[in-house]
Amino acid sequence: MMNKVTCLRAGAALSALAISALSMPAQADTLFDNINGMSISRDGKIHRFAAMVVGDDGRITHILKRDDKPPKDVEYREDGEGRVVLPGMVDSHLHLMGVGLATLSLDLSETRSLAEAQQKIAAYAARFPDRPWIVGRGWNQEQWGLDRFPSAAELDAAVADRPVWLMRVDGHAGWANSRALALAEITEQTENPEGGLIMRQAGSKAPAGVLVDAATSLVDQQVPPPRPEDRDLALYNAQTLLTAQGVTAAADMGTSIEDWMTYRRAGDTGHLTIRIMSYAASLPEMLLIGGTGPTPWLYQDRLRLNGIKLYLDGALGSRGAALKQPYADDPGNSGLQLLNGTQLRNLMSRAAMDNFQVAIHAIGDFANAEVLDAVDELSESYEGDRRWRIEHAQIVDPVDIPRFGQHGTIASMQPIHQTSDRLMAEARLGPDRLAGAYAWRSIAATGAPLAFGSDAPVEAPDPFAGIAAAMSRADAQGQPFGGWQPQETVSLGQPLAAYTSVGAYAGFGEGRFGELKEGQHADFIVVDRDPALNNPEDIRETRVLQTWIGGVKVYDARDGMEELKTETEDDAADYDPAEDYTMQADTAGEDTGEIGR
Amino acid sequence: MMNKVTCLRAGAALSALAISALSMPAQADTLFDNINGMSISRDGKIHRFAAMVVGDDGRITHILKRDDKPPKDVEYREDGEGRVVLPGMVDSHLHLMGVGLATLSLDLSETRSLAEAQQKIAAYAARFPDRPWIVGRGWNQEQWGLDRFPSAAELDAAVADRPVWLMRVDGHAGWANSRALALAEITEQTENPEGGLIMRQAGSKAPAGVLVDAATSLVDQQVPPPRPEDRDLALYNAQTLLTAQGVTAAADMGTSIEDWMTYRRAGDTGHLTIRIMSYAASLPEMLLIGGTGPTPWLYQDRLRLNGIKLYLDGALGSRGAALKQPYADDPGNSGLQLLNGTQLRNLMSRAAMDNFQVAIHAIGDFANAEVLDAVDELSESYEGDRRWRIEHAQIVDPVDIPRFGQHGTIASMQPIHQTSDRLMAEARLGPDRLAGAYAWRSIAATGAPLAFGSDAPVEAPDPFAGIAAAMSRADAQGQPFGGWQPQETVSLGQPLAAYTSVGAYAGFGEGRFGELKEGQHADFIVVDRDPALNNPEDIRETRVLQTWIGGVKVYDARDGMEELKTETEDDAADYDPAEDYTMQADTAGEDTGEIGR
Repeated sequence: MMNKVTCLRAGAALSALAISALSMPAQADTLFDNINGMSISRDGKIHRFAAMVVGDDGRITHILKRDDKPPKDVEYREDGEGRVVLPGMVDSHLHLMGVGLATLSLDLSETRSLAEAQQKIAAYAARFPDRPWIVGRGWNQEQWGLDRFPSAAELDAAVADRPVWLMRVDGHAGWANSRALALAEITEQTENPEGGLIMRQAGSKAPAGVLVDAATSLVDQQVPPPRPEDRDLALYNAQTLLTAQGVTAAADMGTSIEDWMTYRRAGDTGHLTIRIMSYAASLPEMLLIGGTGPTPWLYQDRLRLNGIKLYLDGALGSRGAALKQPYADDPGNSGLQLLNGTQLRNLMSRAAMDNFQVAIHAIGDFANAEVLDAVDELSESYEGDRRWRIEHAQIVDPVDIPRFGQHGTIASMQPIHQTSDRLMAEARLGPDRLAGAYAWRSIAATGAPLAFGSDAPVEAPDPFAGIAAAMSRADAQGQPFGGWQPQETVSLGQPLAAYTSVGAYAGFGEGRFGELKEGQHADFIVVDRDPALNNPEDIRETRVLQTWIGGVKVYDARDGMEELKTETEDDAADYDPAEDYTMQADTAGEDTGEIGR
Repeated sequence: MMNKVTCLRAGAALSALAISALSMPAQADTLFDNINGMSISRDGKIHRFAAMVVGDDGRITHILKRDDKPPKDVEYREDGEGRVVLPGMVDSHLHLMGVGLATLSLDLSETRSLAEAQQKIAAYAARFPDRPWIVGRGWNQEQWGLDRFPSAAELDAAVADRPVWLMRVDGHAGWANSRALALAEITEQTENPEGGLIMRQAGSKAPAGVLVDAATSLVDQQVPPPRPEDRDLALYNAQTLLTAQGVTAAADMGTSIEDWMTYRRAGDTGHLTIRIMSYAASLPEMLLIGGTGPTPWLYQDRLRLNGIKLYLDGALGSRGAALKQPYADDPGNSGLQLLNGTQLRNLMSRAAMDNFQVAIHAIGDFANAEVLDAVDELSESYEGDRRWRIEHAQIVDPVDIPRFGQHGTIASMQPIHQTSDRLMAEARLGPDRLAGAYAWRSIAATGAPLAFGSDAPVEAPDPFAGIAAAMSRADAQGQPFGGWQPQETVSLGQPLAAYTSVGAYAGFGEGRFGELKEGQHADFIVVDRDPALNNPEDIRETRVLQTWIGGVKVYDARDGMEELKTETEDDAADYDPAEDYTMQADTAGEDTGEIGR
């Protein structure tokens, strides 16, 4: 028997007739039935179910098969109308504040001409008169039909009163106006830095405005860091973007102390939506945050410092990845090793000593072998459940692949990188060294846990694009036909697990989230199709209809994504401490599970 | 009607027959009756009551007069046996980690000879073989009957293998061994630094071992900062010491980011006992912690960043306090102004802009006048409830005293300083400038809130010593007879309020703690005498029998104070993440109000 209120609430959740309310908590026990539900265990098995009951604490109390009787005492019923329900997606490698801060900077990626870009830059500067610097990204002179780089003077024409600094779409070049060049003290006397280039004006040594690679840091150093209010906005926007993509938990790879304090501010005031598995950007920051070990799970399992992120080498594109043999397209160069063997082991040991988890960026085959060596050695001193992580593991020497399985080393990989990088990878490595490139199937076959992510903001944080790439090794245009190195494709259960249950396990979140199981938080998404009944091209087009975290709806496609914020509303004017503090006391650390949006 | 369980629980709380359990939560509604209770409102009025009811959330639900009927539904009754119950004491100015870290260093204040000190130093070094430095304090060569300073060689005789650095009792000189001098690179070539002296060996320029004033920083710079585990121990010890003194809340004056993270670790794992009103040690730290404003009250009102601590001048003893006229005992010197007027106003303005509270150290009459000027000017731009605080306000020109009342500027003062400093103050100021010295009664008469504290670890954090000093202006020996400048004594209600309700108000804690009133946390102490029936000398001897915070007993004199910890028990050996995390998840931010001791 359902009374009117019940019908409305049921409506609000899934049916098209509904009035909708963002972040409406599923108060009291709520039965979600008539759903096509699936949960994926770490072994890649898909478990189907027809209904689930969520308690008022936002945790799943019952998972019901088609003919199971629901418990008597549920207060509310929500009709799923047969829609597909999946666990919330876990992105195992992204840069949360990077995703958010990008939304606060000027985006030129859509501009089709220099004039359009100049207009957009001027309008942006006028809109934000208080910003001391205008910072942006995404320009591409080829897209503008310009057969040269733009100049500082052309940027001055848009904004001259404040420094402007705009990164090219590939992140390898920056465009500065005269104020920015002056603040960075770049003159005709300035030499090109090691590994960098200062473009010069024709027939002179005067800087032209564009700086390449290492030279960009000359200006980067001058850009003031984001203000705390900018960081709060960035986190809000990042959460909005991710939940709209169906991502409910993420490993934050390289959390600075400022990032961490931003997450805590959000948690303390009830504004932390997604679940963050944090890896500190440095040893001092890890010790400052965690002190004597990982933090507890905070805010009803929404935040935990797991350990530290280390960088062993660079990236393939810029030939920084450390390879066993020189680059095919740069015979004198085998890449960069950012930590020597001793430094790597000391850092791993210092972290493991206090039970911090270690996640190591390793892209080249030399770097991967080095990490596997270190894990092998350290596993003797540090027993127990360590879950060493290798981030990216892009190029692995086939002889090293079996070693992933030996100590359960987690391979944290980003399928979409394969489709973006394949031509570049072929150029860098040549045809004979691709056997261990993005080798998902081979690594998984060793028994090593395979966790997938997006590396956002480097790539879009769309899990279904990642799943499609993992299954097809082809890009959105279906290139190359039949897939690149197709022997390394994986079948549906594997990428689904890598984006859910294994992602949670890789960050010590298993049992809390990652699966739709009794006792776990009700983190789930409603999507428009059943991945098991679709081919990769169609899976890539999956639409997320709703996203729920801890039994609370945080995204509904019918309302569209919430608008991203660009400015804090200034509350200083109508400031009343008493009121202020009462409001805060209600949410502060009280952990009601309600999302304070 | 009471069943057996009830009797036991009742017993556990107050009666002498009881089995006792530290931090036993008052689960369900508990009636504390047959008590001689008093609460003090901010106007200094004492409100008596005979019983109170504490709910299972640790808050007071009823305050009952002698003949009031208790509510029917209380589960437990605890017989106060007529004992005196006061609100938990609020210390409005101390250095929490300073109190704790002092317990981790070697204390030589009890040593009676150089030989005894050497023996104690050697034993301490043997006990802590892992400590890279041996750090201590409290030595006094006069107490040793030595007519000279001790030497580095005499310290080497105790410990030679590690650097040793020991501060004199007055904090104005440090005693280093040869390793410490070598690490600080102090040789015969080293010149005396400005404002400092390197004692030399007889007939040579070689350092003798003792460094005075500014020269001490040469070694201080070499001492490694405390490790996170040391900070955790320090906080544990500080809480143990303070609760044993009846202190249940404190304003932490100068919280570093490391301090703050230590408080959060304790809060996150359910080990934060007392209530901390935090004032950041610097503007960057304030912004890093609070970001866009004060933090919410965290952990059931146990932690909040209120704002920032600023230093405008130095101290009277070292003639650093900024005076309007030169020092009587140093005619060329009027003290130090550590911030000029513009810097002071800019910092106050930056903080107030985001509603952070500002607490300013001002000891000399010039410094106090300067702060009062700044408050007067800034009050025009920053309306609302700002609660500007002046810390110490020791020497105020009588013409400035009325200005405390104008904007409700809070005078945060430490009565015990008056009894410790009076002879020194007479020397520094001469007889004619004492009218506005430690002028509690005159400042309170302006209507300015008067908040009292201890400045621990500079003075012992004993509130009853402070209350006695405030009422008598005489020290523990009753000196001087009749009190020093007795016209500035205050009567009982004033210091009691300054240590409870006004202390809470001074840190935006009113309504949460500081009074025994319905809706406030049950923070109270049981003491062995009624302050209203005793003279100051006897009030100074008050014994705290029990201390309760949020309805949980955290100290019981019958058990004695918990032993202070000197080392972390190493748990890395039997490390089981799953267990570990489950334990943590239970307490993490869940805010059960239970103290996880």
